[in-house]
Amino acid sequence: MYSNGDIFVGEIIGTAILILLGAGVCAAVTLNHSKAKASGWVVIAFGWGFGVLAGAYTAGPLSGGHLNPAVTLGIAIDTEDWDQVWVYLLGQMVGAMLGAVLAYLVYYAQFSANVSRPVKDKVTSGHEPTPTLGIFSTIPEIRNPVANLVTEIIATIALVLPILAFGLTKGLGESGTQTLIVAFLVVGIGLSLGGPTGYAINPARDLGPRIVHTFLPIPNKGTSDWSYSWIPVAGPLIGGALAGLIYNVAF
Amino acid sequence: MYSNGDIFVGEIIGTAILILLGAGVCAAVTLNHSKAKASGWVVIAFGWGFGVLAGAYTAGPLSGGHLNPAVTLGIAIDTEDWDQVWVYLLGQMVGAMLGAVLAYLVYYAQFSANVSRPVKDKVTSGHEPTPTLGIFSTIPEIRNPVANLVTEIIATIALVLPILAFGLTKGLGESGTQTLIVAFLVVGIGLSLGGPTGYAINPARDLGPRIVHTFLPIPNKGTSDWSYSWIPVAGPLIGGALAGLIYNVAF
Amino acid sequence: MYSNGDIFVGEIIGTAILILLGAGVCAAVTLNHSKAKASGWVVIAFGWGFGVLAGAYTAGPLSGGHLNPAVTLGIAIDTEDWDQVWVYLLGQMVGAMLGAVLAYLVYYAQFSANVSRPVKDKVTSGHEPTPTLGIFSTIPEIRNPVANLVTEIIATIALVLPILAFGLTKGLGESGTQTLIVAFLVVGIGLSLGGPTGYAINPARDLGPRIVHTFLPIPNKGTSDWSYSWIPVAGPLIGGALAGLIYNVAF
Amino acid sequence: MYSNGDIFVGEIIGTAILILLGAGVCAAVTLNHSKAKASGWVVIAFGWGFGVLAGAYTAGPLSGGHLNPAVTLGIAIDTEDWDQVWVYLLGQMVGAMLGAVLAYLVYYAQFSANVSRPVKDKVTSGHEPTPTLGIFSTIPEIRNPVANLVTEIIATIALVLPILAFGLTKGLGESGTQTLIVAFLVVGIGLSLGGPTGYAINPARDLGPRIVHTFLPIPNKGTSDWSYSWIPVAGPLIGGALAGLIYNVAF
Repeated sequence: MYSNGDIFVGEIIGTAILILLGAGVCAAVTLNHSKAKASGWVVIAFGWGFGVLAGAYTAGPLSGGHLNPAVTLGIAIDTEDWDQVWVYLLGQMVGAMLGAVLAYLVYYAQFSANVSRPVKDKVTSGHEPTPTLGIFSTIPEIRNPVANLVTEIIATIALVLPILAFGLTKGLGESGTQTLIVAFLVVGIGLSLGGPTGYAINPARDLGPRIVHTFLPIPNKGTSDWSYSWIPVAGPLIGGALAGLIYNVAF
Repeated sequence: MYSNGDIFVGEIIGTAILILLGAGVCAAVTLNHSKAKASGWVVIAFGWGFGVLAGAYTAGPLSGGHLNPAVTLGIAIDTEDWDQVWVYLLGQMVGAMLGAVLAYLVYYAQFSANVSRPVKDKVTSGHEPTPTLGIFSTIPEIRNPVANLVTEIIATIALVLPILAFGLTKGLGESGTQTLIVAFLVVGIGLSLGGPTGYAINPARDLGPRIVHTFLPIPNKGTSDWSYSWIPVAGPLIGGALAGLIYNVAF
Repeated sequence: MYSNGDIFVGEIIGTAILILLGAGVCAAVTLNHSKAKASGWVVIAFGWGFGVLAGAYTAGPLSGGHLNPAVTLGIAIDTEDWDQVWVYLLGQMVGAMLGAVLAYLVYYAQFSANVSRPVKDKVTSGHEPTPTLGIFSTIPEIRNPVANLVTEIIATIALVLPILAFGLTKGLGESGTQTLIVAFLVVGIGLSLGGPTGYAINPARDLGPRIVHTFLPIPNKGTSDWSYSWIPVAGPLIGGALAGLIYNVAF
Repeated sequence: MYSNGDIFVGEIIGTAILILLGAGVCAAVTLNHSKAKASGWVVIAFGWGFGVLAGAYTAGPLSGGHLNPAVTLGIAIDTEDWDQVWVYLLGQMVGAMLGAVLAYLVYYAQFSANVSRPVKDKVTSGHEPTPTLGIFSTIPEIRNPVANLVTEIIATIALVLPILAFGLTKGLGESGTQTLIVAFLVVGIGLSLGGPTGYAINPARDLGPRIVHTFLPIPNKGTSDWSYSWIPVAGPLIGGALAGLIYNVAF
């Protein structure tokens, strides 16, 4: 059992590292004046997967390293223990917002250069400004609420069901080998199932950075697209709950 | 020993996850309006390998996680225990078909947009329709039955012989490290030996999704190419059997 | 406890292997007449990560495999044991310089061909000469001292905090699984946070090769850019110290 | 201790799998009508690394899985036990030749199509024929014997010294985690040090397939380049011996 304080701190730190690396890799591939500009989907998927690796292993000793409300929900349904769920969720949301701010700071000069016309004595992109929401939150390629929701539900089941089957309900991040496997699992889900919606598969991962995007003073940042925002929250929560139910029936 | 019920459920769930991620990555790279469109062979190979990782580890506690009739056959020849082979095969075929349907649902909006002319109020590909069989089943680059069969036989030996040598005949998916190694082995076979035929190396992986492709209402889906379908079934079965025989002689 | 002699030898060998592979992969991707020319950011990030893998595991039995003054500093702040810090730093600087020379020797023919006009009986690049500093040391995409420093500080925290949390303060390189995790962590930091400055995250990794670059007789080598050199030293040291402080407070 | 018979069989099988995947990935990337055509250096490096993974782990229980005369030499110098060295070398050479033949069979249809003009009823490349030696053996980008030799020596030290330091002198392939680490080490050496010469780092890996290339009836196969062949034999042997000496002094 972890104390509430440890869970809160652990989930903040772990989720912040996850989003720092995850939003970071999207910035790396998207923004002008980045050495990783346009380096492709394999970079995105491995960046997010190793973000999970870094965050889950760091948070392991404190909270078990859920970092994801869908994982917390699936575990709660499996264990029928709901006492500390709210602490996990709170830590995850605070951590996701903190991580988004850190990623913004890492790419501060690149964000500042996201202007179309030369500014005196300043580096500029030399291109049309790039919309920036995709660095923080997910955007579907085809806007179809039912299809997008189904995509997020199935992708989240593919994340949470293996985690439950691995027997990681206690101490997700404490075993090195299992943390490696979860990390590569996340890489695989990104490579395979990320095509349609950008694979939120984690409500905090999408909602926290979207809030931050709404308030950050990024030049030409474009829309924060709140009309889509319920899908990457509802889809992963439904998927996590279904994974918990499937696990209870099948295993 | 696993019970018949556990084997059946485990192989269904594990093979479904394998094909969900495997067919998923082919959809991701092939279809228009996918963020991973045209992201290359490295994405295909890692997507399938991590599909094995996710499926084998999930199925591990229930069935040992074979997910492949060629693996089941090689193990049966090695152990001379044929009692539960039919349960494995049945679960694998059901799981492969289920996984193909799930991958279709994940990419439903992309499949629906696979039309050449604009449809009012609908997203379309804006391109010529893409043949879709390659998302579900394998297609050889050069149609040469003997050469294609030899390719599948050798590639399957390269899969099953290491698995037998690893001493994984009981509980393939139960050890994390060994499951990781099998996953990277599958990535390696894909990278190295997938060029000529697309590496079925698993009869259920090819036949199950081909059946699903035949019946799914995908626009402009193209041929299901049943004339080739015996090769990715026969080749892996011959390869799995040969691996079992080589193992019994050499080890 | 490691002896001073073992630490010195271990850090020299380990850091030399790290820089040999790290500078090597930058040469591989940058120089003409290299088979890996222009093979992209994913190659850079995995090359550096596996350089850490090789170096840390080799040095493990002798010194624990820090290979990085920022790691040594973070551990010293955590353990409040400063006795052998100077031996680590000395070994790391000597090793980093040795590794840079070895990478130069591996790519000797490519460096020698870095001339614009044909030289009789010699292979030449057939292109304009390539600036070579980026093979040895980091160069920011946008020159902004405060932003660059912040980038290096945050990226180094993302490296050192997980290492401390993993409980690797004694014997970083002695456990295979943990060394693998650190290696993939370094890959992840490169993919995600390397875009703005090229991720020094290690003062010895940047300063040692920069000294070597200053003195090596490379044709058309371009500037060694000493005006920037304090940032990839100060940033990682600040980041390592902050990681040690955060760890002491949070864990 | 392994019996001579086990060593011989183990090294044949293990080295054959290594070369099957290694030559296979070079064929996959090089030949026309391959799905992995032109998929880049990252595919080459991971293909060879996972070839080592598959071969070493398969051979582990029988011979320890050296698969490389340079590794065998380094271990012999370290342990001062030369009794079974000849069995290892013989098995490695036979296995390397067998693996090259297997890779040829996997890509038989692609090799057969390597002709410039259409042949009636046959698939042809539709391009100029591709030289095929690079699929079997290494070719330097710049032909400079001293520089090429130095490259192979240093790259082999970077392979064998970590292997010795890992304490794998007995049973290289028996521990899963250490086999994974060696595999990623080989990926790293390929990414970082393979640019100038294509990284033989293994005399059997280069010489065995070169012999096979000389005799195989491949259309338009091009030169087998025997004048270069001594370098990828001598370089790795010198490097393996130096690694053994450095290990004895430093550890």
